[in-house]
Amino acid sequence: MRQFTGVIPPVVTPRSADGSIDTHSLTRVTKHLLEGGVHGLFVLGSSAEVPYMTNDERELVVTTIAGVNAGQVPLIVGACEQTTNRVIEEGRKMVGLGADALVVTSPFYAIPNVQETDTHFRSIHAALDVPLFAYDVPVRTHFKLPLNLLIQLGRDQVIAGVKDSSGDDVSFRQLVLAARGIDNFSIFTGHEVVVDGALLGGADGVVPGLGNVDPAGYRRLFDAAADGDFVKAAAEQDRLADVFNIVYTPTPGRVSGGAAGLGAFKTALMLMGVIDTNIMSAPMLSLNDAETAAIRTILERNGLI
Amino acid sequence: MRQFTGVIPPVVTPRSADGSIDTHSLTRVTKHLLEGGVHGLFVLGSSAEVPYMTNDERELVVTTIAGVNAGQVPLIVGACEQTTNRVIEEGRKMVGLGADALVVTSPFYAIPNVQETDTHFRSIHAALDVPLFAYDVPVRTHFKLPLNLLIQLGRDQVIAGVKDSSGDDVSFRQLVLAARGIDNFSIFTGHEVVVDGALLGGADGVVPGLGNVDPAGYRRLFDAAADGDFVKAAAEQDRLADVFNIVYTPTPGRVSGGAAGLGAFKTALMLMGVIDTNIMSAPMLSLNDAETAAIRTILERNGLI
Amino acid sequence: MRQFTGVIPPVVTPRSADGSIDTHSLTRVTKHLLEGGVHGLFVLGSSAEVPYMTNDERELVVTTIAGVNAGQVPLIVGACEQTTNRVIEEGRKMVGLGADALVVTSPFYAIPNVQETDTHFRSIHAALDVPLFAYDVPVRTHFKLPLNLLIQLGRDQVIAGVKDSSGDDVSFRQLVLAARGIDNFSIFTGHEVVVDGALLGGADGVVPGLGNVDPAGYRRLFDAAADGDFVKAAAEQDRLADVFNIVYTPTPGRVSGGAAGLGAFKTALMLMGVIDTNIMSAPMLSLNDAETAAIRTILERNGLI
Amino acid sequence: MRQFTGVIPPVVTPRSADGSIDTHSLTRVTKHLLEGGVHGLFVLGSSAEVPYMTNDERELVVTTIAGVNAGQVPLIVGACEQTTNRVIEEGRKMVGLGADALVVTSPFYAIPNVQETDTHFRSIHAALDVPLFAYDVPVRTHFKLPLNLLIQLGRDQVIAGVKDSSGDDVSFRQLVLAARGIDNFSIFTGHEVVVDGALLGGADGVVPGLGNVDPAGYRRLFDAAADGDFVKAAAEQDRLADVFNIVYTPTPGRVSGGAAGLGAFKTALMLMGVIDTNIMSAPMLSLNDAETAAIRTILERNGLI
Repeated sequence: MRQFTGVIPPVVTPRSADGSIDTHSLTRVTKHLLEGGVHGLFVLGSSAEVPYMTNDERELVVTTIAGVNAGQVPLIVGACEQTTNRVIEEGRKMVGLGADALVVTSPFYAIPNVQETDTHFRSIHAALDVPLFAYDVPVRTHFKLPLNLLIQLGRDQVIAGVKDSSGDDVSFRQLVLAARGIDNFSIFTGHEVVVDGALLGGADGVVPGLGNVDPAGYRRLFDAAADGDFVKAAAEQDRLADVFNIVYTPTPGRVSGGAAGLGAFKTALMLMGVIDTNIMSAPMLSLNDAETAAIRTILERNGLI
Repeated sequence: MRQFTGVIPPVVTPRSADGSIDTHSLTRVTKHLLEGGVHGLFVLGSSAEVPYMTNDERELVVTTIAGVNAGQVPLIVGACEQTTNRVIEEGRKMVGLGADALVVTSPFYAIPNVQETDTHFRSIHAALDVPLFAYDVPVRTHFKLPLNLLIQLGRDQVIAGVKDSSGDDVSFRQLVLAARGIDNFSIFTGHEVVVDGALLGGADGVVPGLGNVDPAGYRRLFDAAADGDFVKAAAEQDRLADVFNIVYTPTPGRVSGGAAGLGAFKTALMLMGVIDTNIMSAPMLSLNDAETAAIRTILERNGLI
Repeated sequence: MRQFTGVIPPVVTPRSADGSIDTHSLTRVTKHLLEGGVHGLFVLGSSAEVPYMTNDERELVVTTIAGVNAGQVPLIVGACEQTTNRVIEEGRKMVGLGADALVVTSPFYAIPNVQETDTHFRSIHAALDVPLFAYDVPVRTHFKLPLNLLIQLGRDQVIAGVKDSSGDDVSFRQLVLAARGIDNFSIFTGHEVVVDGALLGGADGVVPGLGNVDPAGYRRLFDAAADGDFVKAAAEQDRLADVFNIVYTPTPGRVSGGAAGLGAFKTALMLMGVIDTNIMSAPMLSLNDAETAAIRTILERNGLI
Repeated sequence: MRQFTGVIPPVVTPRSADGSIDTHSLTRVTKHLLEGGVHGLFVLGSSAEVPYMTNDERELVVTTIAGVNAGQVPLIVGACEQTTNRVIEEGRKMVGLGADALVVTSPFYAIPNVQETDTHFRSIHAALDVPLFAYDVPVRTHFKLPLNLLIQLGRDQVIAGVKDSSGDDVSFRQLVLAARGIDNFSIFTGHEVVVDGALLGGADGVVPGLGNVDPAGYRRLFDAAADGDFVKAAAEQDRLADVFNIVYTPTPGRVSGGAAGLGAFKTALMLMGVIDTNIMSAPMLSLNDAETAAIRTILERNGLI
């Protein structure tokens, strides 16, 4: 048995026209996810635009989501800081605000090696009495967490799981296989369109940014896989892969790679009436009318509006 | 209906103690593959060490395999050259030697853009009357073939398929979905350990380097998926993922990344009695006794020797 | 006339055996730099291990250096945060602590594009009434600040200068040439061993990590170049290039790339009696006895101890 | 004393309207270079579009240049092939056609490590009795030749020099310093706009693509540096840096990075009446009328037309 399994979307962060956090919309998106049947909430993830939030904003977001959730599902919270001691400070604060587990990357802006990364996770684990997820996101940290390091950290119960956004599906499969023999070591994929294959290979769950838009779809996908009905899971995945095309609607080059995907999720939620605006954190551009119209078309053909 | 589907391993190139091509061993490995039930043979691929072969050696390898195959399965042959006109010359020669289709990368050593890559494939298609596979292998070419380019080249019947070794599983899934609506556009994965998921997502086949070692295993995996029995396919895949651990046996840093995987395949075939030596093309090192012993253990626990 | 020119070393951060900031040693290294004739101090730079400091530590370091400096030379202080609004908060705090100018990178952990980076610098400039240096350090941010962006930001007086640690000497030369026509736009190189060439090309100064070890040497180099005696400047540079070999003494792979260079600077200062220990911020390893001995040899042959 | 020093431009390859090699124009550009006072000719370099040439074209180019040169200056010829044995075959052919030295990269399309690269150069040296230049061009090979490897190969007289297009000016300086103690080990920079600094640091010469356009300018720069007049050298370099702006005239994204620079050199030579067309090798686009007009402006303000 594993403590963490299932669909755990990274909650997006709605903003008001003046750029401040829109807690009313954040409340609604949290309810939307809970009603969609998610198994947990990933708070302050990349999809939440966490690197763009001030410290006060981070606290407000965690507090708001924790209030809505009221203990219904586990809150897995990102402690997005540059290096070990900064992560420990941030993590301690998040646990105080209600985090049931923390998500931590390798050091960034820093130029670490494997040894330092090992020390990093062990030091954080020693300082904080809370389950720790290693977040493998080399597109942001520019450091791929090595398979052997993750397995050893899992065996030593330093980490309780991995959120894999590495895009390295070969390493992911080997990680899933290795995790089978380790208690309480959960492997989640962060890639929205290959969840059926990940679950077929034995993954424990998924952290889908697109899950903000269609949490119930991911729940159906997960349940079909759990039932061993992979043909049904693949059909659901194919539909979700079509919904995922919303992230390709921005004109190439107009908005950044970071803003395109997150902006699409927020725009879809706006069109669905869940949040009020699709405004992005500074300095990111929001999606424009043409991009919004293209997203509307995709949502309509998939029955989401 | 698609012209190319199934298991099409990239045939390794055995060498003798003096470094020359060992045609006797090459004959045996070709027979081993055909007896394993493969649907085609990929000749002069990266797994064949094609960049390390002289022109005479390339001809000898194609001729030898073509002779053993005698038309039993399609021969898909790599035309591994730096840019368009060199590929056309190489490809024309390979067609003359019996290639049923060609595999072509984007220009390398060159620094192309998307437009030039589009022209590249269209020019080769115009010059050579043979099905063309685009080989997406950014770890070698350092250029990811864009999804939209591949789809357009498929729709325009410039390419008959894609061999994807990009490691980008998200893009791969979108490619498979897009290919559904295009006649005679086959999508193959080159990643040995995620074939079950690729087939679940709708891929047409696999070009597994590890298929040299266990062609029958990949055939069983493919057949299970074709029957819709993905739980069986995943079990076969899990076993093959364990066999794939042979590529991790070399001491890190002793041999290059290129030599580790290919050296492991050749060492396994040597241990299985299919080829005589595990000698690599210059300047690559061959696996040593300790590494060979580690591979033997993996093969034994998987019943391959 | 330009506001900022000359030798402005990034002050290293000494730590005590218990890992805390050693303000006594920090005081001594600051005096050592001022006595060496530096034209300014770069505080909280990468060489200060800024990403590894907690917020309290950052304040302590700035306050300590500002106290020792007592207005003798300008303090250029790094505001090392992930994105725009976080930089503004950090920068405002640093100005309050005595910063005469701020050093700011492009967003990191974020995945920005050129447009967002432009907005980033303009927003920070609008929020804070202080000269701003753009810090081009793609080895950490993984984003090269484009030449045209820097020039436009300089022309618009959004930035007062550039600290270039990009390693792109072609772009650097074009930047220096373009800066000639812009008032109060200072171009500094961060590369310790090519300062003679940078000054020959027209650079305004240097931010040398190695300047912690030999500030007087860099001052002599700068003065020779200012006098037009480039043969003398090159001879001084050659000597400093030999001193720079201290960064290559760590066993490859034992310490990280980040820790090797900074650890060598701190070890040299320890051997010179300027600071008490060569202890690095967690999770970085400190240089060991063998590495320290190798550094001693290099310092001795260059007359630094 | 060193065998190779000075200005050794990589000769561009003019093509006729039908795409074939234009030997008349090639003859004229060769004479233009010799009249400009160059110390050698680099034949079949990247600037010659060597990866885009068929084998017959490569032979024609070498033969044509060798005929015009008639032994006046050394011919340093690129053997641009994927791996060791292919380089040996190509190199042997080039020596037969008149090469006085060969230029060789690390293996490409291959995925080598340091050990294989060492073996690569030693095997080529053993097979061919001709001075060998290591060509460090990671933007094409995606492998930076390590400083220590180059120094050891130089000490062992395996290589007679290095052509550095790595863009790593720190490593370049260390290489130049290390080369001082080694006989017949010449270090050339390939970067057109930092030649003054490279010569100040002790480099032996330059292989400037822009030298096709203004060979006499590079000769004056070299002579000034040889006389110790670096202020004069820097002034000449500044002028050449302005001429170098021709490579930035193509609309970003319209032509590839490879085609922009080489296309600019050919367009300039066309405007100067040295060659007949600015046609690029397939699949590269040639510069268009607007880009040509922009180049004309730059050439006019620098007195080159």
